[in-house]
Amino acid sequence: MNQIITIGREFGSGGRELGKRLSELLGYAYYDREIVRAIARRSELAESYVDMVLENGVCAYYPITVANTFSAAYDPLSMMSGSIYAAQTEILKELAGKSDCVIVGRCADHVLADFHPLRIFVYASRERKLARCREKDQGEWVSDRELERRIRAVDKARSQYYRACTGCVWGDKANYDLCINTSGVELKPLAAALAALARSVRGSEG
Amino acid sequence: MNQIITIGREFGSGGRELGKRLSELLGYAYYDREIVRAIARRSELAESYVDMVLENGVCAYYPITVANTFSAAYDPLSMMSGSIYAAQTEILKELAGKSDCVIVGRCADHVLADFHPLRIFVYASRERKLARCREKDQGEWVSDRELERRIRAVDKARSQYYRACTGCVWGDKANYDLCINTSGVELKPLAAALAALARSVRGSEG
Repeated sequence: MNQIITIGREFGSGGRELGKRLSELLGYAYYDREIVRAIARRSELAESYVDMVLENGVCAYYPITVANTFSAAYDPLSMMSGSIYAAQTEILKELAGKSDCVIVGRCADHVLADFHPLRIFVYASRERKLARCREKDQGEWVSDRELERRIRAVDKARSQYYRACTGCVWGDKANYDLCINTSGVELKPLAAALAALARSVRGSEG
Repeated sequence: MNQIITIGREFGSGGRELGKRLSELLGYAYYDREIVRAIARRSELAESYVDMVLENGVCAYYPITVANTFSAAYDPLSMMSGSIYAAQTEILKELAGKSDCVIVGRCADHVLADFHPLRIFVYASRERKLARCREKDQGEWVSDRELERRIRAVDKARSQYYRACTGCVWGDKANYDLCINTSGVELKPLAAALAALARSVRGSEG
């Protein structure tokens, strides 16, 4: 069976970079934005709309059958059965069936449970997340307070989305195989060690 | 600076075995029961009593100065300032100053914060913990329900002890660098991967 590595991550924790590095080291496919694009193509919805629903956790349900009418019901349950989530599930399973891969976000740990993924959650201290966001940000200047508010808002949305889709608590270690605090470490050597771990876990399964 | 690896663990998760293997692979000292013995020697208390206070989280304070009088105050705060905890703190710092080491339990993650330990927490699913306890147990037969009750009791005591000593929540991922779910993996290859991770973290600090 293909080895699937799913990465949940707090905003600013470096989870995405870690996932990318990990996929490169292992020679695995890497999926993140690609999934949003694929859903948009398949559902004939704007990528930005799919993104809003999936990434920002807006619990809206947009029926593909009424492609020209904006009909959003703000109800987590309706979203659960919604076409966007269904399309995402379908695409995630196709990708997981195709080859070894690393998938960031998208509740992939839950959606792909049958593939027995290595489920990683990446988090960091408040200070580290602020610092990382500052490093990455090339745009407008914002205060620490405002930046922290934005980080918290993204994480809250991810948490709500995860809860709505899986019924589980986002970031609760019981739902993951490995939770990694990136506060005090460099991502490059950490990714190398994780690659070794992924290989060994795969080895011990065989 | 010496590399200190601290391991907190749920009962039946295999944390102790993982710590032992890790120390062997890295060539580090390993401390677990040794600490209880050292405290008992230094405080002239019975090893079993020290064990009860430290391991089972009984929040009792037994003043060394009244060595022949049993005077236990069931108060977490009094324990915090108690001689046993003080002796443990002293011994842990001595050990950490002496050489690289792996320390299981004893709130070492908190006590040795100045040594910037790699703080690991090991946990597992209910089913895995039950199975592991069955594998280890050579004594009386007990029902799953009774075994689970015992596992829960030990974990509750550890949690209370950790809370009393550190003011933090035991097993809360924010307090650790790495949380590892041992439910689906073999400990031997996992320990090898963790050794690689410990080396790489040390490397990235240097």
